[in-house]
Amino acid sequence: MPRIRLGMVGGGKDAFIGGVHRIASRIDDRFDLVAGALSSTPEKSAESAKALGILRSYGKFHEMAEAEASREDGIEAVSIVTPNHVHAAAAQAFLARGIHVICDKPLTSTMEDALALEKAVADSKALFVLTHNYTGYPMIRQAREMVTSGALGAIRIVQAEYPQDWLTSPMENEGLKQAEWRTDPTRSGAGGSIGDIGTHAHNLACFVTGLTVESLAADMQVFGAGRTLDDNAHVLLRFTGGARGMLWSSQVAPGNENALKLRVYGEKGGIEWSQEDPNYLWYTAHGEPKRLMTRNGAGATDASQAVSRIPGGHPEGYLEGFASIYNGAADAIRAVQDGVDHADAMGVLPGIKAGMDGMSFIAACVASASDNAAWVKL
Amino acid sequence: MPRIRLGMVGGGKDAFIGGVHRIASRIDDRFDLVAGALSSTPEKSAESAKALGILRSYGKFHEMAEAEASREDGIEAVSIVTPNHVHAAAAQAFLARGIHVICDKPLTSTMEDALALEKAVADSKALFVLTHNYTGYPMIRQAREMVTSGALGAIRIVQAEYPQDWLTSPMENEGLKQAEWRTDPTRSGAGGSIGDIGTHAHNLACFVTGLTVESLAADMQVFGAGRTLDDNAHVLLRFTGGARGMLWSSQVAPGNENALKLRVYGEKGGIEWSQEDPNYLWYTAHGEPKRLMTRNGAGATDASQAVSRIPGGHPEGYLEGFASIYNGAADAIRAVQDGVDHADAMGVLPGIKAGMDGMSFIAACVASASDNAAWVKL
Amino acid sequence: MPRIRLGMVGGGKDAFIGGVHRIASRIDDRFDLVAGALSSTPEKSAESAKALGILRSYGKFHEMAEAEASREDGIEAVSIVTPNHVHAAAAQAFLARGIHVICDKPLTSTMEDALALEKAVADSKALFVLTHNYTGYPMIRQAREMVTSGALGAIRIVQAEYPQDWLTSPMENEGLKQAEWRTDPTRSGAGGSIGDIGTHAHNLACFVTGLTVESLAADMQVFGAGRTLDDNAHVLLRFTGGARGMLWSSQVAPGNENALKLRVYGEKGGIEWSQEDPNYLWYTAHGEPKRLMTRNGAGATDASQAVSRIPGGHPEGYLEGFASIYNGAADAIRAVQDGVDHADAMGVLPGIKAGMDGMSFIAACVASASDNAAWVKL
Amino acid sequence: MPRIRLGMVGGGKDAFIGGVHRIASRIDDRFDLVAGALSSTPEKSAESAKALGILRSYGKFHEMAEAEASREDGIEAVSIVTPNHVHAAAAQAFLARGIHVICDKPLTSTMEDALALEKAVADSKALFVLTHNYTGYPMIRQAREMVTSGALGAIRIVQAEYPQDWLTSPMENEGLKQAEWRTDPTRSGAGGSIGDIGTHAHNLACFVTGLTVESLAADMQVFGAGRTLDDNAHVLLRFTGGARGMLWSSQVAPGNENALKLRVYGEKGGIEWSQEDPNYLWYTAHGEPKRLMTRNGAGATDASQAVSRIPGGHPEGYLEGFASIYNGAADAIRAVQDGVDHADAMGVLPGIKAGMDGMSFIAACVASASDNAAWVKL
Repeated sequence: MPRIRLGMVGGGKDAFIGGVHRIASRIDDRFDLVAGALSSTPEKSAESAKALGILRSYGKFHEMAEAEASREDGIEAVSIVTPNHVHAAAAQAFLARGIHVICDKPLTSTMEDALALEKAVADSKALFVLTHNYTGYPMIRQAREMVTSGALGAIRIVQAEYPQDWLTSPMENEGLKQAEWRTDPTRSGAGGSIGDIGTHAHNLACFVTGLTVESLAADMQVFGAGRTLDDNAHVLLRFTGGARGMLWSSQVAPGNENALKLRVYGEKGGIEWSQEDPNYLWYTAHGEPKRLMTRNGAGATDASQAVSRIPGGHPEGYLEGFASIYNGAADAIRAVQDGVDHADAMGVLPGIKAGMDGMSFIAACVASASDNAAWVKL
Repeated sequence: MPRIRLGMVGGGKDAFIGGVHRIASRIDDRFDLVAGALSSTPEKSAESAKALGILRSYGKFHEMAEAEASREDGIEAVSIVTPNHVHAAAAQAFLARGIHVICDKPLTSTMEDALALEKAVADSKALFVLTHNYTGYPMIRQAREMVTSGALGAIRIVQAEYPQDWLTSPMENEGLKQAEWRTDPTRSGAGGSIGDIGTHAHNLACFVTGLTVESLAADMQVFGAGRTLDDNAHVLLRFTGGARGMLWSSQVAPGNENALKLRVYGEKGGIEWSQEDPNYLWYTAHGEPKRLMTRNGAGATDASQAVSRIPGGHPEGYLEGFASIYNGAADAIRAVQDGVDHADAMGVLPGIKAGMDGMSFIAACVASASDNAAWVKL
Repeated sequence: MPRIRLGMVGGGKDAFIGGVHRIASRIDDRFDLVAGALSSTPEKSAESAKALGILRSYGKFHEMAEAEASREDGIEAVSIVTPNHVHAAAAQAFLARGIHVICDKPLTSTMEDALALEKAVADSKALFVLTHNYTGYPMIRQAREMVTSGALGAIRIVQAEYPQDWLTSPMENEGLKQAEWRTDPTRSGAGGSIGDIGTHAHNLACFVTGLTVESLAADMQVFGAGRTLDDNAHVLLRFTGGARGMLWSSQVAPGNENALKLRVYGEKGGIEWSQEDPNYLWYTAHGEPKRLMTRNGAGATDASQAVSRIPGGHPEGYLEGFASIYNGAADAIRAVQDGVDHADAMGVLPGIKAGMDGMSFIAACVASASDNAAWVKL
Repeated sequence: MPRIRLGMVGGGKDAFIGGVHRIASRIDDRFDLVAGALSSTPEKSAESAKALGILRSYGKFHEMAEAEASREDGIEAVSIVTPNHVHAAAAQAFLARGIHVICDKPLTSTMEDALALEKAVADSKALFVLTHNYTGYPMIRQAREMVTSGALGAIRIVQAEYPQDWLTSPMENEGLKQAEWRTDPTRSGAGGSIGDIGTHAHNLACFVTGLTVESLAADMQVFGAGRTLDDNAHVLLRFTGGARGMLWSSQVAPGNENALKLRVYGEKGGIEWSQEDPNYLWYTAHGEPKRLMTRNGAGATDASQAVSRIPGGHPEGYLEGFASIYNGAADAIRAVQDGVDHADAMGVLPGIKAGMDGMSFIAACVASASDNAAWVKL
């Protein structure tokens, strides 16, 4: 099967997440990166493209969308890896021309942009994939399958957390680019830690359980001097159907690198998963000893094996999980090209719905926090 | 130094916690258990006393208090290990006669009782020690010392949790005595999981950080069919001085036995401790690798060494931590007998103040939960 | 049931292991320590006895054996907690008078002494218990029961190790008493690390598997400058029946406190246990996920529950494991007093056989090491 | 910098390791796979090449070597991923024509082949890289750097092990192709577990410590009925300079997937690393608490950062470690093309020397085991 011709918006030199997308797109050999509008100026873009061996370089994403759409061998899909406030406009430019979009999260920096993008997706013949990459981890797929199949019984409790420590000191004042835009509301949106990483915890909780947050109460803090966005957030969650939960996001918890963790408990059992040790899934059938399930190990389910590359005991990591989103996107794009319905093609892949849920989650957290942690419906 | 003559109220056959107190009182050889009112009837009491080799048996705690107070060789201290609703009356009977009291937690089952007991303690010449036993763990003492000495800087975040799984199934309907009284509000008080174990998490958070909860918002659930008391609780915490936290207690989280865990993060560092692996304390100075501190190992502080018995690498457990409360009580009793001031004699030992704080915490949680998780001041 | 009257030889001030024996003897309330010959002079002995509240003090163990044997209320049993080279003579003095002996390990410092002691035990009406305390850990009892019951199938591989790090630096030259006698062949015997801790690993391997070492090849090293006894040893093991193994003991492995670890693999499954986390036992039925068995948790067997005091999730430690040897000794003593056969009374308790096996193991290691790691039969 | 044109020998459909090499070659975007002799027949090869999108397919590696060497745009390097007994002939065909070789391990299946290959490498203008992939893990690079820089002091003890469990049952009789050739001496060589995975443990021990095994004593077993090659091996190691060690390889240890583990102890400190959790490195400076070093985390050294792609806390895995060998090979190839000396170009990359050391190690183990574990010099 021929590779999918891919373009990229953003991801020039010094950008972090663009490089991750490129590796992820290569691992399973489903894409050829052939075009890019990688930086803010034509010169920088060309320089980055040359360094990366990308054939066609554009100064602006609009030009790229137009030019590629008119080529016979133009890109079939585009990765959007810019800061958050550019996502919507870029995605719309390609969706309008039938070019499939693979977009970094969160969806956009404002709800207004998100609604416009939601409409654009609905109106497009192309797919919109949001790289909520943690959903690509095999043991997360297995966790979802176990919950869905009823192994835990009705879900009662969800504990989700994503602590980091990199903003314990005021990095944004020390020239760290990542810290600068992530602490700037005009580029990141109204949520700080809650938007950057809390959304991952929220997304994962919903992905694994299949549940939706009905209402929440958020107490958010700004600990770093001079910051305007939250760097720590505590959230109470009420899910449809009666499950209850807590969510913690933090950028100021020393000793935590990317300690995303999900724990789900039901009437019949519980599971626990940690992003930093992603090849393991703890599973307890109530009344039996804890079991340590491993990726592609004994007891691995279809859902996890489908996104595994190598046998158990040889760890796959973050990049492979990310690659499984790209691999899934490739499958979905080929399926759509073969006439399959969008929803069927997407399957469990995160898309506009997950993105809108994330935007609602951030908005509800911000609204609740500004009203003394009052309950807010989503 | 001669051993302290000790009595016991409650703790007859089939009782769990009485046996724990007896072992704890023996480990460091500071007490002789010589009298008891162990059960609800004189016959049962006598039978239990005989089986345990206790010299003097009484039918009722009032009789015991009176008789022992009038003997030259009467007990100097008494352990109260009855169900919660008996604590207050029993403690008052001994305190009024100058007999030191070592009482199981929580303080009482009602706030009314608690206030009466608080007054009794204030009026007595005897000490009142509350066995918040987890504060006896060496690494908890070390954690407190590290926070107090400023190793973490100003505290920002406190994460406390105590999940269990034993009530996942309706054990109270299956003849389990422990489950029966713990799910019965007339014997346990208004809090279920929050009173039984949430108080431990709260106590530990305050003990280690030296902070006080100013207000809280609690969302509490009853998942087990037919129950009236919470078996799961999610609480947002605001501490004096600006620190923020979350607390989770649960009796319905499969895979958790007694998974009490405390994490504290400050401007300069963080610590993490888990009750099920109590000889370890994770410590991160921000910007340095995580350190795994061990009991009596490299880097052990005075505070932890003072309550350690054996070298690092040979684990001490729950009973030794409990014994350190008894050992501390013995020191305090001897000090008071030598004329030392009550407060100085108690030092870091948990007493009436910790008990009242626990009662306020439970009351605030119950009040908040019944008002849709509104903020309640303590 | 009345407590057993106990005496102690050795264990005066500054001694470490004597204090451990005393705590262990108290935990389950089966013994009263009423007599002692605690130190090398009558004055020191009396001082220690007074400090510990022991009624009768003797200057020499011979005097004590004679005097106590002639009293109506004399001791029924004695704990011997001296340096190794005194074990044999002391034990024989009491055994000859029908006083039960609980002796610290290793058995003796020379094979000659061991053989004499073996004969004394055979000739005595009293029991001889050797405190191979790690066999008292509940999960070790469970491991033995699982192996014996065939859960692992025929055993193929045994991996045993006991690394420490305390002699990495030359502590024996810095006035550390423990280091002094442990590195002195006249007091410790011919084995250094292999005698002090390698014997524990050997004992545990045999206890759990029920197998016997048929022959071994040992490569032993002296890394610390100025030492004569091994501080590191590597041993190949061949068990009767075809199982094979490795054993490592070390006192110079930085980062290891008392990292005794046992792993056993058979045709159908494997188990793994670590002394520093003794409440856990990993069990894998081949082809199924690993299970984490916990003390008194789901899946706990009779053998482990019989030596557990408190529910799962509240850790028991080293002292409780040690206490289970004392508790077992109390049962055995009472049984013998009731006319039960010695072997039946002992059950799985370690005695003279375990002691002789340990002596043979040390002798074989020393012989092999001095012959360039040639195979030596046991 | 343009990508290196790469060919592949072996790795057709159903082969496992070929796919791993292809992913590894893609991750850092340094190679274009343009030619292949992927299977044993021209038809199968062509089919596999087509499925993989490889431009030029050959029936035999000799044809490929000849044809590619004569093209202007012929391959610059070739990956050899056949069963072991084909390595030598294939590698020689390309080396003779100046085409760089990246070869899977172990070097060859016989010592005769190995010697011939060693000569071919010495005579060639091209590089020979052996994919001892575990040396590509960042924390292994860091461990090596720490040892080399003296952080541990003089090395005393090395503990290396690689247990697996997949041959616990006789998989080779159940049609598992991987099990078939790995248990067949004509295709694997004289070593079973010791050749397949023991060599990895040996290689890693030498790579990290910079030491060489001087002599060894090996006790090897065949537990699986009907097997001729060892499926379990226990080895005593003596390193030049006085360090001592043990090595264990097993394919029949239930509960172990790919549990390669290395522990190194010196006069000043110790380190511990486990392949299944490769982003962590435990480090103890003697007398200080254990430190948990993380990939790209606090305390990361230059050597580990040089082979890391993403920040700490987002795990890299087996494929990234493998990719770092490919990335290193790309650097080395470009360097040689620029006139750099072979040795300088290779740096720490494993090559013919590591391969010959592995062959000697296997031969010594087999010789020792057949002589009752006598010491054999390497």
